[in-house]
Amino acid sequence: MVNQQYPSQLLEQAVQEFSKLPGIGRKTALRLVLHLLRQDTEEVALFANTIARMRQEVKHCRVCHNVSDNDVCPICSDPRRDESTVCVVENIQDVMAVENTQQFNGLYHVLGGVISPMDGIGPADLEIDSLVERVKDGGIKEVILALGSTMEGDTTGFYIFRKLATYDVRLTAIARGISVGDELEYTDEVTLGRSILNRMPFKG
Amino acid sequence: MVNQQYPSQLLEQAVQEFSKLPGIGRKTALRLVLHLLRQDTEEVALFANTIARMRQEVKHCRVCHNVSDNDVCPICSDPRRDESTVCVVENIQDVMAVENTQQFNGLYHVLGGVISPMDGIGPADLEIDSLVERVKDGGIKEVILALGSTMEGDTTGFYIFRKLATYDVRLTAIARGISVGDELEYTDEVTLGRSILNRMPFKG
Repeated sequence: MVNQQYPSQLLEQAVQEFSKLPGIGRKTALRLVLHLLRQDTEEVALFANTIARMRQEVKHCRVCHNVSDNDVCPICSDPRRDESTVCVVENIQDVMAVENTQQFNGLYHVLGGVISPMDGIGPADLEIDSLVERVKDGGIKEVILALGSTMEGDTTGFYIFRKLATYDVRLTAIARGISVGDELEYTDEVTLGRSILNRMPFKG
Repeated sequence: MVNQQYPSQLLEQAVQEFSKLPGIGRKTALRLVLHLLRQDTEEVALFANTIARMRQEVKHCRVCHNVSDNDVCPICSDPRRDESTVCVVENIQDVMAVENTQQFNGLYHVLGGVISPMDGIGPADLEIDSLVERVKDGGIKEVILALGSTMEGDTTGFYIFRKLATYDVRLTAIARGISVGDELEYTDEVTLGRSILNRMPFKG
């Protein structure tokens, strides 16, 4: 396409800002900007203000490092949750994913990533020391590793395993195996092989 | 999916604002918000500020009604453009589309829509009177209708044709026919039929 000339610098800048967002190209950005141009000025001001305020005011829970409006997040401060079980996840989306299952009533610990030498992310860049501190402080009986089934996830899990080895805490990992609804013939051999090795007593 | 509980109201509100944009669902909105959360506060403030400022300060050219930073847009105020030819289009995107062809050196007139009784849009909602005024003021020799090939586009074209009938101005419409690169067998019969009726002298 020919290098597009916008009739307005203001429009051009707004399109450029939207294009910086992941998965949004210049065509989509222009569509979004022209949509906003048709909305009331107050509506657009509210949009802009909400985004800026979110970035400025949102905090991270000082216990689990999940996003939060307060110093301690609603999950960590909920007395109905089981404080003795901590689920270790990579990021905020993973907390939401586990919460959505409605199968977990403990607390979380958000690492903020996984160990990835390729991307220059080492243990010191993650919230691992603070996890060890939480365990050291006592009260935690089980730490569940809920990390992605990738090289980086496995490395991170192994690092945490070594760090927690000297503490009296049960370390578990979420089950890996064939997905619910999957056919055996379409499952990759590594997953299928692991799910045979990790077979469980049949509950009829 | 389970009704998602966000750990932060600020996050929730930002996701809601993004979800209002066309083609952006809650999942994409969350992805965009979490992306912004990882950016510097100043970067996000710039994003928000640019959007708000664009909506607040962008004007419409008082001659052609295209978006503009000034009272008169860069196209209308460019002395190298042919003031005697005006291309009538539905919206701002259409101006950009025609500009991209680099085949037109005249001025534009942006209607701001097409007549569509189904959507409650009548001639009074569009910039048709101002087009008639421009023609009345003199200096315009040709008005090119560059409207979509739809019922609404045709209705709008016919309405403008009647409004301009008493003025000494040549009214033309962009050619309709088979697209460049199209095979006859895959062209719909209405387009093909019209392109036979509107056949032109062969330029070898």
